Amino acid sequence: MLIVQKYGGTSVANVERIKAVADRVSRTAQQGNRVVVVVSAMSGETDKLIGLAHQVSSTPNEREMDLLLSSGERVTSALTAMAIEEKGHKAMALTGRQMGIITDTVHTKAKIEKITGERAKRALDEGYVLVIAGFQGITEGEDVTTLGRGGSDLSAVAIASALGADLCEIYTDVDGVYTTDPNIVPGARKLQKISFEEMLELASLGAKVLQTRSVEFAMKYGVPIVVRSSFNDNPGTLVTKEDEEMEKVVVSGVAYDKNQAKITVTGVPDKPGIAAKMFKGIADASIIVDMIVQNVSSDGRFADISFTVPRTDSKKALQLTEEIARELGATGVTLRDDIAKISIVGVGMRTHSGVAAQMFETLARHGINIIMISTSEIKVSCIIELKYTELAVRVLHDTFGLAEAE
Amino acid sequence: MLIVQKYGGTSVANVERIKAVADRVSRTAQQGNRVVVVVSAMSGETDKLIGLAHQVSSTPNEREMDLLLSSGERVTSALTAMAIEEKGHKAMALTGRQMGIITDTVHTKAKIEKITGERAKRALDEGYVLVIAGFQGITEGEDVTTLGRGGSDLSAVAIASALGADLCEIYTDVDGVYTTDPNIVPGARKLQKISFEEMLELASLGAKVLQTRSVEFAMKYGVPIVVRSSFNDNPGTLVTKEDEEMEKVVVSGVAYDKNQAKITVTGVPDKPGIAAKMFKGIADASIIVDMIVQNVSSDGRFADISFTVPRTDSKKALQLTEEIARELGATGVTLRDDIAKISIVGVGMRTHSGVAAQMFETLARHGINIIMISTSEIKVSCIIELKYTELAVRVLHDTFGLAEAE
Repeated sequence: MLIVQKYGGTSVANVERIKAVADRVSRTAQQGNRVVVVVSAMSGETDKLIGLAHQVSSTPNEREMDLLLSSGERVTSALTAMAIEEKGHKAMALTGRQMGIITDTVHTKAKIEKITGERAKRALDEGYVLVIAGFQGITEGEDVTTLGRGGSDLSAVAIASALGADLCEIYTDVDGVYTTDPNIVPGARKLQKISFEEMLELASLGAKVLQTRSVEFAMKYGVPIVVRSSFNDNPGTLVTKEDEEMEKVVVSGVAYDKNQAKITVTGVPDKPGIAAKMFKGIADASIIVDMIVQNVSSDGRFADISFTVPRTDSKKALQLTEEIARELGATGVTLRDDIAKISIVGVGMRTHSGVAAQMFETLARHGINIIMISTSEIKVSCIIELKYTELAVRVLHDTFGLAEAE
Repeated sequence: MLIVQKYGGTSVANVERIKAVADRVSRTAQQGNRVVVVVSAMSGETDKLIGLAHQVSSTPNEREMDLLLSSGERVTSALTAMAIEEKGHKAMALTGRQMGIITDTVHTKAKIEKITGERAKRALDEGYVLVIAGFQGITEGEDVTTLGRGGSDLSAVAIASALGADLCEIYTDVDGVYTTDPNIVPGARKLQKISFEEMLELASLGAKVLQTRSVEFAMKYGVPIVVRSSFNDNPGTLVTKEDEEMEKVVVSGVAYDKNQAKITVTGVPDKPGIAAKMFKGIADASIIVDMIVQNVSSDGRFADISFTVPRTDSKKALQLTEEIARELGATGVTLRDDIAKISIVGVGMRTHSGVAAQMFETLARHGINIIMISTSEIKVSCIIELKYTELAVRVLHDTFGLAEAE
């Protein structure tokens, strides 16, 4: 098999961890596999570099920021290759450029456009274990770019796809994908398998195991991912195409996101194009609007519009909304930031009815008021009061029987 | 003017120093100059990375070592460019590759083969201050290389030559080139001007201001260098082509090197090819032999051969010499490592006679025995007992009137 193994910052945090990575890579190679390793910067390194940049400049140039940040992964790729060689394998470190990862020119959050990978293929044929610096690419104009937070996951999945790897293993400091956060529900169960769609919902709903972009990429190109820990030999969770077995499970996981705030604009004259105008202003400020609810008054002349944004952006969003509300002639704007989003996710919802009702009933039974609701084919999300977050996660996890064996 | 300014590790050691560099660059640009900055890694960074490499591997691969080490200069180039931009200039950081520094494939001590520099020229024309990562280049096969210790000086001189710069300023933590080490002779005087040849001799004789290779390069391509401090605005020392004024000065400086050991092989059968055989074995072990003295016995049948090597290599050299001596049928091998080399340097020696005699007489007068002598057109070196080093430097500095005004 050709296996891509990605190791995150905590997995290469120091010399001992890098040697442990080399051990694992060595074992994988000895089992007859060809191995391509993708590494992040040592944990803390990227933040240290960002800190330095902000000390020398109030608004660091993003081109130079990318050159700066890309150095962290170069260091770990070189050290990891040395450590693997020390185990008796041929190993070669490759930068994003040497791997042929071509991106667009949007510095600090570049998108991968293509991966040429000729040199990597040649080196694999020559028996090398490859160690690729994650998180980075290069523009057609030969400037270094980075792929944004969690970009090394994306590097790994994209490389796996480009090389036609059989598997992409994402090594991190957790054992896999759980039915919910084990810090809240000690009985949370590790999933053996989960579909791309479910993983995507969980990732975008606040589960921090995998980045949304890398799951999207894996789904698009059909790259099976295994999420597992570099600190033990537990099997991890396979993220793959949906199958019949998965459809039998109604709810696969419960996610929560405490970084939520709700803005409500009241008395908006109900004319076409009003919502567009409102949300364009907020999008232009790069604030992500999540749920949107609109109610029109009984006479159809006015509307109340509520929407949620990350709490970290709520002040800026409020200010923008107040400006827009004035222009639109709305009567008022209010902010509520003591809220959280609770979601249940499962591909089984497609074929099982009454799941949403069961969620609402469970929350009501425990005195948890639902402020907003949003549904998709395979998830139901509710905005509730922040203080009920842990309670809601626990009772939903229990109601949908997630602690039991699969 | 087009000015290349090179800043060493202590000059970019932290955020404050990097800001001070940006200040100086800004002032230079405001005076109407175009500026190309070449930076080293923050002081200590390269040693830290080498330490990490040796922790993960007993014999780190040199290709990966270069990838590792090159990251330090990338960090400072990006930070320095940001700091310069903060001062209101357009600034662009360029890696060795982006500068088009093409080297041979001898990793960790690569030689520059050519500098394409198209992108740099274009950016200069567009009004950018350039900040180049020193110490690094790239092979034709696109692998990262480094130029060895002090390689950033070489980068700066080579870039100055490639871009046709008017001046290459080397910023360091000393004010310039002194007549001798001011730690030994407090009255040592900073030279306003020194010839390439003299600088070359001083560098190879133990003065640590500039690396030999960068002086050779500057001499070959006629790039005037100014050595000065980044910690003050003192004018520094101009290293340039020899002129009439310089020739009037008999001795420009006194150098010393305490890293010396002498090996003597006695009773070597005096046959052709003996010396070649002996020194080939030592050269193959990458040990640099400095002075060599050979005496043939009165009957012409045997020779004694003495030579000096760096004390740090003396044990290895002794072992090798003993093996070779056995093969050659020599009667004995002795090592003496309590010695130092004292040298006087000056282009004026070419036209002034009696300089060597004056040196020997001065040493003798102070009871300092001369163990070996070596001369060139513009220098005289003596091996003496280690304990007399400081005394010898002081009395020679005095004898040749170096503390007086030029």
